[in-house]
Amino acid sequence: MELYGTADWKTEKHVPVIEVADVVKTSEKTLVTVSVGKEIAHPNKTEHHISWIKLMFWPEGEKYPYQLGIANFDAHGASIKGPDTSGVYSEPYAVFQLKTDKPGKLIATSYCNIHGFWKFEKEVKVE
Amino acid sequence: MELYGTADWKTEKHVPVIEVADVVKTSEKTLVTVSVGKEIAHPNKTEHHISWIKLMFWPEGEKYPYQLGIANFDAHGASIKGPDTSGVYSEPYAVFQLKTDKPGKLIATSYCNIHGFWKFEKEVKVE
Amino acid sequence: MELYGTADWKTEKHVPVIEVADVVKTSEKTLVTVSVGKEIAHPNKTEHHISWIKLMFWPEGEKYPYQLGIANFDAHGASIKGPDTSGVYSEPYAVFQLKTDKPGKLIATSYCNIHGFWKFEKEVKVE
Amino acid sequence: MELYGTADWKTEKHVPVIEVADVVKTSEKTLVTVSVGKEIAHPNKTEHHISWIKLMFWPEGEKYPYQLGIANFDAHGASIKGPDTSGVYSEPYAVFQLKTDKPGKLIATSYCNIHGFWKFEKEVKVE
Repeated sequence: MELYGTADWKTEKHVPVIEVADVVKTSEKTLVTVSVGKEIAHPNKTEHHISWIKLMFWPEGEKYPYQLGIANFDAHGASIKGPDTSGVYSEPYAVFQLKTDKPGKLIATSYCNIHGFWKFEKEVKVE
Repeated sequence: MELYGTADWKTEKHVPVIEVADVVKTSEKTLVTVSVGKEIAHPNKTEHHISWIKLMFWPEGEKYPYQLGIANFDAHGASIKGPDTSGVYSEPYAVFQLKTDKPGKLIATSYCNIHGFWKFEKEVKVE
Repeated sequence: MELYGTADWKTEKHVPVIEVADVVKTSEKTLVTVSVGKEIAHPNKTEHHISWIKLMFWPEGEKYPYQLGIANFDAHGASIKGPDTSGVYSEPYAVFQLKTDKPGKLIATSYCNIHGFWKFEKEVKVE
Repeated sequence: MELYGTADWKTEKHVPVIEVADVVKTSEKTLVTVSVGKEIAHPNKTEHHISWIKLMFWPEGEKYPYQLGIANFDAHGASIKGPDTSGVYSEPYAVFQLKTDKPGKLIATSYCNIHGFWKFEKEVKVE
Protein backbone atom coordinates (compact mmCIF):
# COMPACT_ATOMS: atom_id res chain seq x y z
CA MET A 1 0.00 0.00 0.00
CA GLU A 2 1.26 3.45 -0.88
CA LEU A 3 1.31 6.25 1.73
CA TYR A 4 -0.06 8.74 -0.83
CA GLY A 5 -3.08 7.73 -2.90
CA THR A 6 -3.34 8.84 -6.53
CA ALA A 7 -6.39 8.88 -8.79
CA ASP A 8 -8.23 10.95 -11.36
CA TRP A 9 -9.38 14.11 -9.54
CA LYS A 10 -12.56 14.22 -11.64
CA THR A 11 -13.79 11.01 -10.02
CA GLU A 12 -11.87 10.91 -6.70
CA LYS A 13 -12.72 14.00 -4.63
CA HIS A 14 -9.64 13.77 -2.37
CA VAL A 15 -7.05 14.48 -5.05
CA PRO A 16 -5.54 18.00 -4.87
CA VAL A 17 -5.80 19.79 -8.21
CA ILE A 18 -2.96 22.10 -9.32
CA GLU A 19 -3.90 25.05 -11.55
CA VAL A 20 -1.03 27.02 -13.06
CA ALA A 21 0.05 28.27 -16.48
CA ASP A 22 1.81 25.58 -18.56
CA VAL A 23 4.64 28.04 -19.21
CA VAL A 24 5.65 30.60 -16.56
CA LYS A 25 7.92 33.65 -16.90
CA THR A 26 11.37 33.03 -15.47
CA SER A 27 11.81 34.43 -11.92
CA GLU A 28 8.52 36.30 -12.01
CA LYS A 29 5.77 35.85 -9.43
CA THR A 30 3.40 33.11 -10.61
CA LEU A 31 0.17 32.11 -8.89
CA VAL A 32 -0.42 28.40 -8.32
CA THR A 33 -3.84 27.40 -7.05
CA VAL A 34 -4.25 24.03 -5.35
CA SER A 35 -7.65 22.84 -4.17
CA VAL A 36 -9.40 19.68 -3.07
CA GLY A 37 -12.90 18.94 -4.32
CA LYS A 38 -12.84 21.04 -7.50
CA GLU A 39 -15.19 18.66 -9.35
CA ILE A 40 -16.87 16.84 -6.47
CA ALA A 41 -17.01 18.89 -3.25
CA HIS A 42 -15.38 17.32 -0.20
CA PRO A 43 -17.26 17.42 3.13
CA ASN A 44 -16.19 20.05 5.63
CA LYS A 45 -17.42 18.90 9.01
CA THR A 46 -15.93 18.59 12.47
CA GLU A 47 -15.61 14.83 12.05
CA HIS A 48 -14.48 14.79 8.39
CA HIS A 49 -12.49 17.45 6.53
CA ILE A 50 -9.31 18.30 4.65
CA SER A 51 -6.56 19.35 7.08
CA TRP A 52 -3.90 20.71 4.74
CA ILE A 53 -2.51 21.07 1.22
CA LYS A 54 1.25 21.07 0.58
CA LEU A 55 3.06 22.16 -2.58
CA MET A 56 6.54 21.06 -3.64
CA PHE A 57 8.71 21.75 -6.70
CA TRP A 58 11.29 19.44 -8.23
CA PRO A 59 13.50 21.28 -10.74
CA GLU A 60 14.11 19.20 -13.88
CA GLY A 61 17.28 17.12 -13.65
CA GLU A 62 18.05 18.05 -10.02
CA LYS A 63 18.63 15.56 -7.24
CA TYR A 64 16.40 17.11 -4.54
CA PRO A 65 12.86 18.56 -4.50
CA TYR A 66 11.94 21.74 -2.55
CA GLN A 67 8.98 22.42 -0.30
CA LEU A 68 7.29 25.62 -1.48
CA GLY A 69 4.72 25.82 1.27
CA ILE A 70 1.87 24.29 3.20
CA ALA A 71 -1.61 25.66 3.88
CA ASN A 72 -3.43 24.37 6.96
CA PHE A 73 -7.22 24.52 7.23
CA ASP A 74 -8.25 24.70 10.88
CA ALA A 75 -11.89 25.78 11.22
CA HIS A 76 -14.33 22.91 10.81
CA GLY A 77 -17.46 23.97 12.63
CA ALA A 78 -16.70 22.99 16.21
CA SER A 79 -17.65 25.43 18.99
CA ILE A 80 -18.33 25.27 22.72
CA LYS A 81 -21.86 24.15 21.76
CA GLY A 82 -20.58 21.00 20.01
CA PRO A 83 -19.57 19.76 16.57
CA ASP A 84 -20.80 21.72 13.52
CA THR A 85 -22.29 24.58 15.54
CA SER A 86 -19.86 27.47 15.00
CA GLY A 87 -20.95 28.42 11.48
CA VAL A 88 -17.26 29.10 10.68
CA TYR A 89 -15.35 26.91 8.21
CA SER A 90 -12.08 27.07 6.25
CA GLU A 91 -12.28 25.36 2.88
CA PRO A 92 -9.50 23.29 1.22
CA TYR A 93 -8.31 25.92 -1.22
CA ALA A 94 -4.84 27.46 -1.36
CA VAL A 95 -2.91 29.84 -3.57
CA PHE A 96 0.89 29.86 -3.59
CA GLN A 97 3.00 32.55 -5.21
CA LEU A 98 6.06 30.93 -6.77
CA LYS A 99 9.15 32.29 -8.48
CA THR A 100 11.36 29.88 -10.43
CA ASP A 101 14.04 30.23 -13.07
CA LYS A 102 13.89 26.51 -13.85
CA PRO A 103 11.34 24.15 -15.38
CA GLY A 104 10.23 21.24 -13.25
CA LYS A 105 7.45 19.31 -11.60
CA LEU A 106 4.97 20.74 -9.11
CA ILE A 107 3.86 18.08 -6.60
CA ALA A 108 0.81 18.71 -4.41
CA THR A 109 -0.20 16.53 -1.48
CA SER A 110 -3.19 16.80 0.82
CA TYR A 111 -4.55 15.12 3.93
CA CYS A 112 -8.10 14.14 4.85
CA ASN A 113 -8.46 13.46 8.58
CA ILE A 114 -10.11 10.07 7.90
CA HIS A 115 -9.14 9.12 4.31
CA GLY A 116 -5.40 9.77 4.49
CA PHE A 117 -2.88 11.30 2.09
CA TRP A 118 -3.31 12.10 -1.64
CA LYS A 119 -0.93 13.30 -4.35
CA PHE A 120 -1.04 15.08 -7.72
CA GLU A 121 1.69 16.34 -10.07
CA LYS A 122 1.98 18.86 -12.90
CA GLU A 123 4.93 19.90 -15.08
CA VAL A 124 5.75 23.59 -15.65
CA LYS A 125 8.04 25.10 -18.24
CA VAL A 126 9.74 28.52 -18.03
CA GLU A 127 10.43 31.14 -20.68
CA MET B 1 7.05 45.52 24.34
CA GLU B 2 4.28 43.76 22.50
CA LEU B 3 4.81 40.33 20.95
CA TYR B 4 2.99 41.40 17.76
CA GLY B 5 3.94 44.70 16.15
CA THR B 6 1.28 46.85 14.51
CA ALA B 7 1.72 49.73 12.09
CA ASP B 8 0.35 51.24 8.89
CA TRP B 9 0.97 48.64 6.15
CA LYS B 10 1.56 51.43 3.62
CA THR B 11 4.72 52.49 5.45
CA GLU B 12 5.74 49.33 7.37
CA LYS B 13 6.39 46.48 4.93
CA HIS B 14 6.02 43.69 7.51
CA VAL B 15 2.33 44.21 8.21
CA PRO B 16 0.05 41.54 6.66
CA VAL B 17 -2.72 43.12 4.57
CA ILE B 18 -6.18 41.53 4.54
CA GLU B 19 -8.25 41.92 1.36
CA VAL B 20 -11.86 40.80 1.52
CA ALA B 21 -15.30 42.18 0.71
CA ASP B 22 -16.68 44.45 3.45
CA VAL B 23 -19.89 42.44 3.40
CA VAL B 24 -19.86 38.70 2.66
CA LYS B 25 -22.76 36.35 1.83
CA THR B 26 -23.75 34.25 4.82
CA SER B 27 -22.28 30.71 4.73
CA GLU B 28 -21.02 31.09 1.17
CA LYS B 29 -17.39 30.55 0.18
CA THR B 30 -15.54 33.86 0.41
CA LEU B 31 -11.95 34.46 -0.67
CA VAL B 32 -9.70 36.32 1.77
CA THR B 33 -6.28 37.33 0.48
CA VAL B 34 -3.54 38.08 2.99
CA SER B 35 -0.12 39.26 1.84
CA VAL B 36 3.00 40.89 3.21
CA GLY B 37 4.72 43.64 1.22
CA LYS B 38 1.73 44.79 -0.84
CA GLU B 39 2.95 48.40 -0.97
CA ILE B 40 6.66 47.97 -0.22
CA ALA B 41 8.03 44.55 -1.23
CA HIS B 42 9.64 42.51 1.55
CA PRO B 43 12.99 40.77 0.82
CA ASN B 44 12.87 37.07 0.05
CA LYS B 45 16.34 35.73 0.70
CA THR B 46 17.78 32.75 2.52
CA GLU B 47 18.84 34.98 5.41
CA HIS B 48 15.72 37.22 5.51
CA HIS B 49 12.18 36.31 4.54
CA ILE B 50 8.57 35.94 5.67
CA SER B 51 7.99 32.47 7.15
CA TRP B 52 4.22 32.35 7.48
CA ILE B 53 0.87 34.17 7.49
CA LYS B 54 -1.94 33.12 9.84
CA LEU B 55 -5.61 34.09 9.66
CA MET B 56 -8.07 34.05 12.57
CA PHE B 57 -11.73 35.03 12.93
CA TRP B 58 -13.42 36.36 16.03
CA PRO B 59 -17.22 36.31 15.68
CA GLU B 60 -18.81 39.48 17.05
CA GLY B 61 -19.84 39.15 20.69
CA GLU B 62 -18.32 35.68 21.15
CA LYS B 63 -15.84 34.76 23.86
CA TYR B 64 -13.30 32.85 21.75
CA PRO B 65 -11.61 33.46 18.38
CA TYR B 66 -11.06 30.69 15.78
CA GLN B 67 -7.98 29.88 13.76
CA LEU B 68 -8.97 29.67 10.10
CA GLY B 69 -5.62 28.61 8.75
CA ILE B 70 -1.94 29.19 8.36
CA ALA B 71 0.17 29.35 5.20
CA ASN B 72 3.87 28.55 5.50
CA PHE B 73 6.40 29.81 2.95
CA ASP B 74 9.37 27.46 2.79
CA ALA B 75 11.48 28.11 -0.33
CA HIS B 76 13.93 30.98 0.09
CA GLY B 77 16.68 30.33 -2.40
CA ALA B 78 18.94 27.93 -0.53
CA SER B 79 20.38 24.96 -2.45
CA ILE B 80 23.32 22.56 -2.11
CA LYS B 81 25.38 25.33 -3.79
CA GLY B 82 24.71 27.81 -0.95
CA PRO B 83 22.31 30.60 0.02
CA ASP B 84 20.30 32.27 -2.78
CA THR B 85 21.41 29.85 -5.48
CA SER B 86 18.32 27.67 -6.10
CA GLY B 87 16.33 30.18 -8.16
CA VAL B 88 13.19 28.88 -6.37
CA TYR B 89 11.23 31.10 -3.96
CA SER B 90 7.80 31.12 -2.29
CA GLU B 91 6.41 34.61 -1.77
CA PRO B 92 4.40 35.82 1.29
CA TYR B 93 0.98 35.69 -0.31
CA ALA B 94 -1.94 33.53 0.83
CA VAL B 95 -5.59 33.07 -0.06
CA PHE B 96 -8.02 31.52 2.41
CA GLN B 97 -11.52 30.38 1.53
CA LEU B 98 -13.82 31.17 4.44
CA LYS B 99 -17.47 30.42 5.17
CA THR B 100 -19.15 32.26 8.03
CA ASP B 101 -22.74 32.91 9.05
CA LYS B 102 -21.64 35.58 11.54
CA PRO B 103 -20.06 39.02 11.32
CA GLY B 104 -16.79 39.51 13.12
CA LYS B 105 -13.15 40.48 13.00
CA LEU B 106 -10.52 38.87 10.77
CA ILE B 107 -7.09 38.93 12.44
CA ALA B 108 -3.97 38.23 10.38
CA THR B 109 -0.52 37.69 11.84
CA SER B 110 2.79 37.08 10.10
CA TYR B 111 6.38 36.27 11.00
CA CYS B 112 9.63 37.57 9.55
CA ASN B 113 12.58 35.36 10.49
CA ILE B 114 14.56 38.38 11.77
CA HIS B 115 11.98 41.12 12.46
CA GLY B 116 9.45 39.14 14.47
CA PHE B 117 5.66 39.01 14.56
CA TRP B 118 3.15 41.48 13.04
CA LYS B 119 -0.63 41.85 13.22
CA PHE B 120 -3.48 43.39 11.23
CA GLU B 121 -7.28 43.32 11.68
CA LYS B 122 -10.35 43.89 9.50
CA GLU B 123 -14.07 43.73 10.29
CA VAL B 124 -16.46 41.80 8.03
CA LYS B 125 -20.23 41.94 7.96
CA VAL B 126 -22.58 39.25 6.60
CA GLU B 127 -25.80 39.45 4.64
CA MET C 1 -10.57 41.23 24.96
CA GLU C 2 -7.08 39.84 24.47
CA LEU C 3 -6.34 37.38 21.66
CA TYR C 4 -4.27 35.19 24.01
CA GLY C 5 -5.75 34.27 27.37
CA THR C 6 -3.50 34.02 30.43
CA ALA C 7 -4.21 32.37 33.77
CA ASP C 8 -2.68 30.14 36.44
CA TRP C 9 -2.01 26.77 34.77
CA LYS C 10 -2.82 24.96 38.02
CA THR C 11 -6.44 26.06 37.80
CA GLU C 12 -6.91 26.78 34.06
CA LYS C 13 -6.27 23.62 32.04
CA HIS C 14 -5.68 25.42 28.73
CA VAL C 15 -2.48 27.21 29.73
CA PRO C 16 0.69 25.70 28.20
CA VAL C 17 3.28 24.91 30.87
CA ILE C 18 6.98 25.42 30.10
CA GLU C 19 9.45 23.12 31.88
CA VAL C 20 13.13 23.98 31.50
CA ALA C 21 16.16 24.49 33.73
CA ASP C 22 16.29 27.99 35.27
CA VAL C 23 19.88 28.30 34.05
CA VAL C 24 21.01 26.66 30.80
CA LYS C 25 24.54 26.08 29.46
CA THR C 26 25.44 28.61 26.77
CA SER C 27 25.03 27.23 23.21
CA GLU C 28 24.44 23.66 24.44
CA LYS C 29 21.38 21.62 23.52
CA THR C 30 18.70 22.18 26.16
CA LEU C 31 15.38 20.36 26.34
CA VAL C 32 12.27 22.48 26.84
CA THR C 33 9.03 20.62 27.49
CA VAL C 34 5.74 22.40 26.85
CA SER C 35 2.44 20.71 27.61
CA VAL C 36 -1.21 21.55 28.07
CA GLY C 37 -3.17 19.94 30.88
CA LYS C 38 -0.26 19.12 33.20
CA GLU C 39 -2.37 19.57 36.36
CA ILE C 40 -5.90 19.15 34.99
CA ALA C 41 -6.05 16.98 31.85
CA HIS C 42 -7.57 18.60 28.77
CA PRO C 43 -10.10 16.59 26.71
CA ASN C 44 -8.83 14.97 23.52
CA LYS C 45 -11.87 14.30 21.38
CA THR C 46 -12.79 14.84 17.76
CA GLU C 47 -14.95 17.82 18.72
CA HIS C 48 -12.67 19.31 21.40
CA HIS C 49 -8.87 19.15 21.57
CA ILE C 50 -5.60 21.07 21.59
CA SER C 51 -4.41 21.71 18.01
CA TRP C 52 -0.89 23.02 18.56
CA ILE C 53 1.75 24.39 20.93
CA LYS C 54 4.20 27.08 19.78
CA LEU C 55 7.43 28.15 21.49
CA MET C 56 9.17 31.51 21.02
CA PHE C 57 12.27 33.08 22.57
CA TRP C 58 12.88 36.75 23.18
CA PRO C 59 16.55 37.45 24.00
CA GLU C 60 16.92 39.96 26.85
CA GLY C 61 17.24 43.53 25.62
CA GLU C 62 16.66 42.68 21.95
CA LYS C 63 14.04 44.28 19.75
CA TYR C 64 12.58 41.15 18.12
CA PRO C 65 11.50 37.71 19.39
CA TYR C 66 12.26 34.46 17.51
CA GLN C 67 9.97 31.54 16.76
CA LEU C 68 11.70 28.35 17.94
CA GLY C 69 9.11 25.94 16.67
CA ILE C 70 5.55 24.71 16.60
CA ALA C 71 4.17 21.25 17.31
CA ASN C 72 0.85 20.32 15.71
CA PHE C 73 -1.36 17.58 17.17
CA ASP C 74 -3.48 16.03 14.45
CA ALA C 75 -5.02 12.74 15.60
CA HIS C 76 -8.18 13.18 17.64
CA GLY C 77 -10.10 9.95 17.26
CA ALA C 78 -11.95 10.47 13.99
CA SER C 79 -12.12 7.55 11.54
CA ILE C 80 -14.29 6.46 8.63
CA LYS C 81 -16.66 5.05 11.31
CA GLY C 82 -17.27 8.50 12.85
CA PRO C 83 -15.95 10.75 15.63
CA ASP C 84 -13.97 9.12 18.45
CA THR C 85 -13.80 5.70 16.82
CA SER C 86 -10.19 5.41 15.61
CA GLY C 87 -8.56 4.68 18.98
CA VAL C 88 -5.62 6.86 17.87
CA TYR C 89 -4.87 10.18 19.56
CA SER C 90 -1.99 12.67 19.75
CA GLU C 91 -1.72 14.40 23.11
CA PRO C 92 -0.77 18.09 23.67
CA TYR C 93 2.81 17.50 24.75
CA ALA C 94 5.90 18.81 22.97
CA VAL C 95 9.65 18.85 23.55
CA PHE C 96 11.85 21.42 21.85
CA GLN C 97 15.63 21.25 21.77
CA LEU C 98 17.01 24.78 22.05
CA LYS C 99 20.49 26.26 21.86
CA THR C 100 21.02 29.84 23.02
CA ASP C 101 24.01 31.93 24.02
CA LYS C 102 21.73 34.62 25.51
CA PRO C 103 19.37 34.85 28.46
CA GLY C 104 15.78 35.75 27.68
CA LYS C 105 12.13 34.89 27.89
CA LEU C 106 10.53 31.72 26.57
CA ILE C 107 6.95 32.37 25.42
CA ALA C 108 4.62 29.42 24.78
CA THR C 109 1.22 29.70 23.11
CA SER C 110 -1.37 27.03 22.42
CA TYR C 111 -4.71 26.69 20.67
CA CYS C 112 -7.84 24.79 21.69
CA ASN C 113 -10.20 24.30 18.75
CA ILE C 114 -13.14 25.71 20.75
CA HIS C 115 -11.59 27.75 23.61
CA GLY C 116 -9.07 29.79 21.63
CA PHE C 117 -5.49 30.89 22.27
CA TRP C 118 -3.49 30.77 25.53
CA LYS C 119 -0.07 32.06 26.58
CA PHE C 120 2.60 31.38 29.21
CA GLU C 121 6.10 32.79 29.76
CA LYS C 122 9.26 31.75 31.59
CA GLU C 123 12.65 33.44 31.94
CA VAL C 124 15.88 31.51 31.34
CA LYS C 125 19.41 32.50 32.25
CA VAL C 126 22.62 31.20 30.64
CA GLU C 127 26.00 30.31 32.12
CA MET D 1 13.33 9.06 -8.29
CA GLU D 2 11.38 8.76 -5.08
CA LEU D 3 10.06 11.86 -3.30
CA TYR D 4 11.18 10.49 0.08
CA GLY D 5 14.71 9.12 0.41
CA THR D 6 15.38 6.11 2.61
CA ALA D 7 18.70 4.85 3.95
CA ASP D 8 20.39 3.47 7.06
CA TRP D 9 20.25 6.26 9.67
CA LYS D 10 23.63 5.19 11.05
CA THR D 11 25.33 6.23 7.82
CA GLU D 12 22.88 8.78 6.30
CA LYS D 13 22.44 11.71 8.68
CA HIS D 14 19.15 12.92 7.17
CA VAL D 15 17.05 9.92 8.13
CA PRO D 16 14.64 10.58 11.04
CA VAL D 17 15.07 7.99 13.81
CA ILE D 18 12.01 6.77 15.72
CA GLU D 19 12.53 5.70 19.34
CA VAL D 20 9.61 4.02 21.07
CA ALA D 21 8.93 0.88 23.08
CA ASP D 22 8.44 -2.21 20.88
CA VAL D 23 5.24 -2.95 22.78
CA VAL D 24 3.05 -0.14 24.15
CA LYS D 25 0.17 -0.28 26.64
CA THR D 26 -3.20 -0.06 24.92
CA SER D 27 -4.71 3.48 25.01
CA GLU D 28 -2.09 4.75 27.45
CA LYS D 29 0.09 7.78 26.76
CA THR D 30 3.30 6.65 25.08
CA LEU D 31 6.27 8.87 24.26
CA VAL D 32 7.70 8.60 20.76
CA THR D 33 10.96 10.47 20.12
CA VAL D 34 11.89 11.30 16.54
CA SER D 35 15.19 13.02 15.76
CA VAL D 36 17.46 13.72 12.83
CA GLY D 37 21.22 13.33 13.24
CA LYS D 38 21.23 10.88 16.15
CA GLU D 39 24.44 9.18 15.01
CA ILE D 40 25.96 11.85 12.74
CA ALA D 41 24.87 15.40 13.67
CA HIS D 42 23.15 17.39 10.94
CA PRO D 43 24.23 21.03 10.37
CA ASN D 44 22.01 23.72 11.83
CA LYS D 45 22.81 26.91 9.94
CA THR D 46 20.78 29.64 8.29
CA GLU D 47 21.59 28.21 4.86
CA HIS D 48 21.27 24.49 5.75
CA HIS D 49 19.05 22.92 8.39
CA ILE D 50 16.21 20.51 9.12
CA SER D 51 12.83 22.29 8.79
CA TRP D 52 10.43 19.74 10.24
CA ILE D 53 9.74 16.19 11.40
CA LYS D 54 6.33 14.56 10.83
CA LEU D 55 4.95 11.42 12.47
CA MET D 56 2.19 9.23 11.06
CA PHE D 57 0.59 5.98 12.23
CA TRP D 58 -0.90 3.27 10.05
CA PRO D 59 -2.97 0.79 12.09
CA GLU D 60 -2.36 -2.80 11.02
CA GLY D 61 -4.83 -3.98 8.38
CA GLU D 62 -6.52 -0.58 7.97
CA LYS D 63 -6.95 1.22 4.68
CA TYR D 64 -5.82 4.72 5.72
CA PRO D 65 -2.91 6.09 7.76
CA TYR D 66 -3.28 8.94 10.29
CA GLN D 67 -1.13 11.99 10.80
CA LEU D 68 -0.18 12.17 14.49
CA GLY D 69 1.64 15.47 14.33
CA ILE D 70 4.34 17.64 12.88
CA ALA D 71 7.10 19.57 14.64
CA ASN D 72 8.55 22.60 12.85
CA PHE D 73 12.03 23.92 13.67
CA ASP D 74 12.22 27.63 12.92
CA ALA D 75 15.28 29.21 14.54
CA HIS D 76 18.45 28.76 12.50
CA GLY D 77 20.75 31.57 13.54
CA ALA D 78 19.56 34.45 11.36
CA SER D 79 19.25 37.89 12.96
CA ILE D 80 19.18 41.51 11.78
CA LYS D 81 23.01 41.28 11.76
CA GLY D 82 23.00 38.51 9.11
CA PRO D 83 23.06 34.72 8.83
CA ASP D 84 24.32 32.72 11.83
CA THR D 85 24.54 35.71 14.16
CA SER D 86 21.56 35.29 16.53
CA GLY D 87 23.04 32.56 18.72
CA VAL D 88 19.55 31.00 18.86
CA TYR D 89 18.82 27.63 17.23
CA SER D 90 16.11 24.97 17.32
CA GLU D 91 17.44 21.45 16.83
CA PRO D 92 15.71 18.64 14.85
CA TYR D 93 14.37 16.72 17.83
CA ALA D 94 10.71 16.04 18.58
CA VAL D 95 8.69 14.07 21.10
CA PHE D 96 5.12 13.02 20.36
CA GLN D 97 2.73 11.62 22.95
CA LEU D 98 0.61 8.94 21.31
CA LYS D 99 -2.33 6.85 22.49
CA THR D 100 -3.35 3.85 20.42
CA ASP D 101 -5.45 0.76 21.04
CA LYS D 102 -4.13 -0.88 17.86
CA PRO D 103 -0.79 -2.20 16.64
CA GLY D 104 0.62 -0.67 13.48
CA LYS D 105 3.42 1.13 11.75
CA LEU D 106 4.88 4.49 12.80
CA ILE D 107 6.12 6.43 9.78
CA ALA D 108 8.38 9.46 10.29
CA THR D 109 9.34 11.90 7.55
CA SER D 110 11.63 14.92 7.67
CA TYR D 111 12.74 17.75 5.42
CA CYS D 112 16.17 19.32 4.95
CA ASN D 113 15.94 22.71 3.23
CA ILE D 114 18.55 21.66 0.62
CA HIS D 115 18.60 17.83 0.65
CA GLY D 116 14.88 17.14 0.45
CA PHE D 117 12.57 14.61 2.13
CA TRP D 118 13.49 11.47 4.10
CA LYS D 119 11.48 8.60 5.60
CA PHE D 120 11.78 5.97 8.32
CA GLU D 121 9.35 3.36 9.68
CA LYS D 122 8.94 1.30 12.84
CA GLU D 123 6.34 -1.26 13.88
CA VAL D 124 4.68 -1.08 17.32
CA LYS D 125 2.63 -3.74 19.08
CA VAL D 126 0.07 -3.14 21.85
CA GLU D 127 -0.75 -5.12 24.98
